[in-house]
This record gives sequence, C-alpha cells and structure tokens, in this order.
Amino acid sequence: MASAVGDSVRKRVIVIGGGFAGINAAMHLAKLPVDITLVDRRNHHTFQPLLYQVALAVLSPAEIAQPIRSILRDYRNMEVLMDEAVGFDLSERRVKLKTGAELEYDYLIVATGSTHSYFGRDDWAPLAPGLKTIEDATEIRRRVLLAFELAERQMQEQGSHPPLNFVIVGGGPTGVELAGAISDIARLYMARDFRHIDPASAKVLILEGSPNVLAAYPPDLQKKAVEQLAKLGVAVRTGARVTDIQPGYVMIGDEKLESAVTLWAAGVQASPLGKMLGLPVDRRGCVMVDQFLNPEGHPEIFICGDLAHVEENGKLVPGVAQPAMQMGTYAAKRIGLFLRQETTGDRTGLDIPFHYFDKGDMATIGRKAAVANIKWPFTARWSGLPAWVTWLVVHIFFLIGFRNRIAVFRQWAWTYLTFQDGARLITGSQELPGWDKNWSEEQASRTVDPVDNTFAAPKT
Amino acid sequence: MASAVGDSVRKRVIVIGGGFAGINAAMHLAKLPVDITLVDRRNHHTFQPLLYQVALAVLSPAEIAQPIRSILRDYRNMEVLMDEAVGFDLSERRVKLKTGAELEYDYLIVATGSTHSYFGRDDWAPLAPGLKTIEDATEIRRRVLLAFELAERQMQEQGSHPPLNFVIVGGGPTGVELAGAISDIARLYMARDFRHIDPASAKVLILEGSPNVLAAYPPDLQKKAVEQLAKLGVAVRTGARVTDIQPGYVMIGDEKLESAVTLWAAGVQASPLGKMLGLPVDRRGCVMVDQFLNPEGHPEIFICGDLAHVEENGKLVPGVAQPAMQMGTYAAKRIGLFLRQETTGDRTGLDIPFHYFDKGDMATIGRKAAVANIKWPFTARWSGLPAWVTWLVVHIFFLIGFRNRIAVFRQWAWTYLTFQDGARLITGSQELPGWDKNWSEEQASRTVDPVDNTFAAPKT
Repeated sequence: MASAVGDSVRKRVIVIGGGFAGINAAMHLAKLPVDITLVDRRNHHTFQPLLYQVALAVLSPAEIAQPIRSILRDYRNMEVLMDEAVGFDLSERRVKLKTGAELEYDYLIVATGSTHSYFGRDDWAPLAPGLKTIEDATEIRRRVLLAFELAERQMQEQGSHPPLNFVIVGGGPTGVELAGAISDIARLYMARDFRHIDPASAKVLILEGSPNVLAAYPPDLQKKAVEQLAKLGVAVRTGARVTDIQPGYVMIGDEKLESAVTLWAAGVQASPLGKMLGLPVDRRGCVMVDQFLNPEGHPEIFICGDLAHVEENGKLVPGVAQPAMQMGTYAAKRIGLFLRQETTGDRTGLDIPFHYFDKGDMATIGRKAAVANIKWPFTARWSGLPAWVTWLVVHIFFLIGFRNRIAVFRQWAWTYLTFQDGARLITGSQELPGWDKNWSEEQASRTVDPVDNTFAAPKT
Repeated sequence: MASAVGDSVRKRVIVIGGGFAGINAAMHLAKLPVDITLVDRRNHHTFQPLLYQVALAVLSPAEIAQPIRSILRDYRNMEVLMDEAVGFDLSERRVKLKTGAELEYDYLIVATGSTHSYFGRDDWAPLAPGLKTIEDATEIRRRVLLAFELAERQMQEQGSHPPLNFVIVGGGPTGVELAGAISDIARLYMARDFRHIDPASAKVLILEGSPNVLAAYPPDLQKKAVEQLAKLGVAVRTGARVTDIQPGYVMIGDEKLESAVTLWAAGVQASPLGKMLGLPVDRRGCVMVDQFLNPEGHPEIFICGDLAHVEENGKLVPGVAQPAMQMGTYAAKRIGLFLRQETTGDRTGLDIPFHYFDKGDMATIGRKAAVANIKWPFTARWSGLPAWVTWLVVHIFFLIGFRNRIAVFRQWAWTYLTFQDGARLITGSQELPGWDKNWSEEQASRTVDPVDNTFAAPKT
C-alpha cells in the first residue's frame, strides 16, 4: 500500500523495539524522507513507570499500554511489524527476523531495552516475578490479591493462616513503589472487604543488598523515603543479600524469612539482542557506544535506551525513561543530519554529541507520598505530598495518547477519593507457590518478629 | 469478626455461585436475619452480556467484572469465600469445599450456571474457545488481533497470507454478537492501522446447525438479523453441522472451511455441580426443580439460574440473565417467608410459585444495529438503531456498580465516536493454532468463494 517499500532512492531505517527510545525515534524519523519499519515482538507500547499501578490493581492494562500501530498509524512512511529480531548481518546491513525473513536497512536503531537479571539464578524467576511487561503486572496482581483470599479462606475454615508477608527483593524505585502500593492496598482499599482477616496486618519488607534504598538519590531523600515507607508499615533491610528464594520463604544467609508473595525488583540485564550484534558489550550486556550513540565503526547503527552503555563525564547514563526518549530523538535527528549532508554537503551539527538532559528523578511511596530530586526547570528536593503531586502531573503528561491521560487521571481521581478500585481481578491460576494450606497455630505463634517487624522465622 | 458464624439461633444460608442468580439472592438475603456465605471459585462477578465486548477489545475486563467482595462488602451478615464446592451431604446439610473444609447450612442456593458443551468433542476446546469467563474473553481477543498481525507480517515478508477467515460456530445471541463485533473491528477500528493488508478483507462466517439464527426470536427478527449481518459482510450458513474442528480449518461433512480463528458459541451444559447434588438432572445436566425452584423433597434447597431446569406452562425458562436474577430474588424472598412462618406461623405467600417475568430479548449486531423483542413495558419488535440504543441503555442500567456504568458509558461513547480503542492488547502467547506460516500464492488462489462469501476451500 502507500509506503514505498523497496524504493531505492529513499533510505530505509529499521527501529527495533517499541519502548520509549524506539517510539520517540520513530516519531522523529517520520518527519524525514525515509521509510521506517518499527519491529517489536509485542503489539503494544507499555508505559513502564505506571506498570506497578497495574500490578497493584489501581489501573487496567489498557490504560497504560497502547497498540504501537495506533500510536504511529498516521505516519504514512511508517510500518509496524510484530516480529522479533534474532540476528544481524552488519556488513550486509540486514536484520534477521524470527519468522525467517530478512530486512535491509540503511540506518539501524536498536532499542530493545533490558530484562530482569536473577544473577544466574533463573530458577528464582517463577518464585519471584519481576515487573517489566503487562503480563508481569497481571501476574503480580494475581499473586498479591490471591494471598489475601487464601488467608481469608484459611482463617475461616481452619482458624489460622500463613502470615501475609510480602517480600520485595530490591530497593530501587520499582521496589519502593511496589512496597508502598501493596501497603496501600492492604491498609486502605481492602480494609472493609474481609471478615476474618485484617488486611492491614499484612507486612511488607524491602530487602536491599546495598547500604541504601534508592541508590540514585541524594542521602537526604533516601532518608525521607525510608521514613515515609516506615509510616506505611513497610520495613526496609539494607545490606541484606538474598542467598536463596524458595516457595514460601526467602533466605538471607541462614536466616529464613517467611514470604507469602516474593517480588523481584533487583537486577536488570540488557536484552539479548545486545550480544547478538556481535559488538563489544559491558558486564550487563549493554552495547558500548560512543558519544554519538554509535558502536565503534558503525555510524549507521544507533543503540538507544537501556540497551546502550553511554557514559557522560565518566558517569553512566541511567536506564530510565528520560534518557531513553532523548536517545531515540537524538538518533533520529542525527540521521536527518546525515541525509542533509548527503544532499547539500552541509555537516553542521554532526559534531554535536548526545547529551543527557537530566530533569531529575521521582519515585512514589504509596498514596500521597513520594521523593522528587528535581533538576529542571529548577533545583529542588521534595518529599511527601508536593513530590507526589509533581509525580502525578509529570506522569499523566508523558502518557502517550490523550485518551489514556484522561482515563488514567479519572481512574486515579476515583481511586484516591473513594478508595474504590475496579481492577482488582484475579485471573489465571488460583495456586500460590509455597502457600501452606495446613498452616498451624503452632507455626503462627513463631512468625512475626514484633521488634523490627521484619518477620524473621526461627533459623532452620 | 462482625458476622455471627456458628451462631445457633440465626439460620445459615449458603449461596454457591456469584453470577446473576447468586449475587441477586445474596443481596436480598442480606436484609434477612440470617448469616450468608457466598462461595465462588473466582473473586469476581462477571457481567456476561458484555463479555463479547472485552473479547473484541472495546472494553477492559475491569469494566465488566467486579470483585464479589466489593459488591457485597457493606452487608455485615455476609461472607464471601473464594473456594469451590466439590460435594454435598444433603442429609447432613453440608457442602464440601475443594480445600477439604465443610460448611453447614439451613438453606442452600446453588447457582453455578453453565459452561461450554463441545458435544463430547472436548478436543475442540483449545481450537475453538468459547466465551464464558474473563480469561475466555482475553484469549479470544488475543487470537483475533493476532490473526491480523500475522497476516500483515506475512504479507510484508512473503507477499501472501492465509485468508483472514473467522468462523463462529453457533448462531445464538453470543455468536451473532461476536460476528458483528469482529466485522466492526476489521472494517472500522483497524482500517488505518495496517499497511500491507486490508483488515476489511476479513471474512466472518456464522455456522448454525438449526434452520435459523437467534432461534429464540420471532421469524421476522431472525430475518432482520440476517439482513443486518449481511450489511456487515457477515455470512450465515444455517443447517450447517460442524463435523470436525482442526487447527486452521473447520469441516462440515466433507467440506473444508479455512479458518484463521474459530470461535465456539454453540452448546452449553450445566455446571458439574448439578450432577454432584445427586438429584435428578436433565440431558444438559440441569437440576429438575418444582415451581418453587426446589428439587423434589428438598424445600431447603434452591437451584437458580442456568443450572435449574424450570418449566413454565410447558416451556423451558431460558438460560439468560433475566430469569437468573429473578430466580435468585425469588429464592431469597421465599427463605424470608419460611423464617416468618417459623416465628409467626404466618404462611402467607408460601403458595406463590416462581414466575418468569419476561421483559423480552435483545441481541446486538455490531455497531448501531441490533434486534429487540420487547415484551415489557410494551410489546414491540425493533431492529437497527432503535434496538441498539435500547440495548445500550438497558445494559448500562444493569451493570453492577455506579463506577462501572460511568466507565463503560464513557468507553463506549469514546469508541463509537472516534473509532479509537485502547483495549486492543495482545497478551500471552504469540502463536495461533493452525496458522500457516508458509501460505503460498497457489493456496491463496483457491480460497475465498466469491459467490456466496462463505470461503469454502476445495474438498480435500
């Protein structure tokens, strides 16, 4: 149809990955006289900063995910291909797809992001799901909600139930946001739903291997975060290295922590495509690129987003949404400069390296609380309600699609005003790995450690 | 906590099933001096009349499903138990639960509804999913949307793709609604999303074994329905008995129909609980009950909804939402009469049998079209826009929960005005059973039968 596939005059640009980097690259490329093919194995772009709200049943998947086709449908020089890149021929400038087909390119943008890293313990994955995709989010939702249902049932039928302990491995933004949200659900939204258990008795624990949560934030905000978490009854243990995860519990050395639901918010690693390129990668599998986001010797290839190992004044550009969007935009604009140079010979701007314009970082800590390390348009370190409101506004603003902005705003308003919540659905299996169906009073008697609220069970 | 479990004075009522019958029974029972336990294996009530809109990506699951706890949370004499009944001891008045526990009752209401019947060919189930649960709906959504994505991909990479044929087995309301909605998606909502395929080229076929679609409707409305379906490009073949379903095709005798996605809207059978009761059941497994909805010899047991075989003046009461709600209400009120009789000896009303107050039937046929056989408050047979508007109003009115009504109305308004649609997500597996990845021009040349648009392939 309309688009000029195989047209030899126009340059072909392939964008792999429909995340923040890929979508932004595509939108800017669309203005150029090129033919673009965006390849993603999923049919939707996911607004990852709000994924945890799907995981905790505040938002519905469709409110934070948009079909990539719909986002890009109006660009006639754009094709969206639901397929998976499985290999590259950099000399022939070809991308091999899972279906066996190959696509030729003049310029290539690879932005396939990152995935969970279980530090070599992939057997932990089914026991402690992470949060990267819509499927992850609904699985976490399923487990968290199911734990309360099973506890209520067991309390009614047997008079006791395993402790409602939620262990979150990793104290980064995702871990903190998940912890705060679980606490909210338990204390606020489900308060009146149960007859036999008190949802507020649920305990949430963050296990962080490093000395501090929110490592990327200044110490005073880290402190504020821990304070706000404490207000929500969320316990934080830093310097706590998880040595094993099993159904129903987590080990720290020889200390056993009972856990009804364990969530993974610790390590990330680059998407395997990084290695497939056959170019130098770092320890996490991120592709080493120069200041123009090009791997050495490949000015026609751009690596963007989490997949790129970009250093600026010796510091690594973080793997979050902002730099990803900026990299995508930079790559697209640079391709524009190349095109102009070829036609007019004008090299202006081609010497401008990528620069990460850091507007700051924000993390919510449950309802009405957050920390914000603001660097633009002014410098400020906020916490509590002001930070939370800022977070709200910024995230609604950056949501793709007017409709979603309205929907999400309406949903939030409704939820926060009424404590009601319509997305609390348990779908799929009704089994919870490691849940003890015969939990006894005897066991119950030796659970929660009242002192530090980190529910250590006796050593085994 | 609050509710008086084990209190010997108050009667205990167990309601099994959180569908239309169960929820209505529970809400009316809540006003009586009884302790109620509603048991459902799911945590949510599903508004089944709108399930097909989730299946076709117009609505999100959370917009038509509501946690049962939330619906009933304000009734202090109500317990909701997420568990499954697996057996009964009618003499001891006990219900056995999957978890091994047993519940005692003074009155029992069983309303576990119906499930798909593949007429003994359960091997067809994975090849032709039916539409009863939220999971069913998202699975159908996945298959329908995936078919278009695979076709687009194959067209771009290989220049041909298997025909976008959607075969719906069964011409009842569900089949007709699914067919109309698929046609809508293809012709309206996805029109501008693809570059290589024309979504409008998708063909939808209803296979109905009996001589007419919408058998429960008067002949003139059946005719109107077929006309409106034809306008949407939906072909109908009546008297067509499916003899086999395989990945990629459906057999009618020795005639092979290529099918990208096959959906099941044909047979239903009663939930297995009917048989578990050990009481007389009919051919479909529905429990035979008298005019008071009691199985013979058990005035303390009420069978409601699809599970009940109720005849009124020799005609079977249909297995749809309206009678289910009415039965639930009737059972609850009758229990109230029993209680009054026990205390005051007043038998007034105990001789009033259940009567199905039939307000009529409606089925939508895609956007802006429907048939309505209205019997109350006036008699009328409508089709087209008026019927569709009536359908809209009635279904919004009966949605449980103010919030959902607003949300659904807003979503509909948005969708029907803009042809935009935010719920078009493909989640889960990305394989489509029977999709031919190597579909050739040669095959393509011998597909769609242009004459009657029912895409018969050459006999094999």
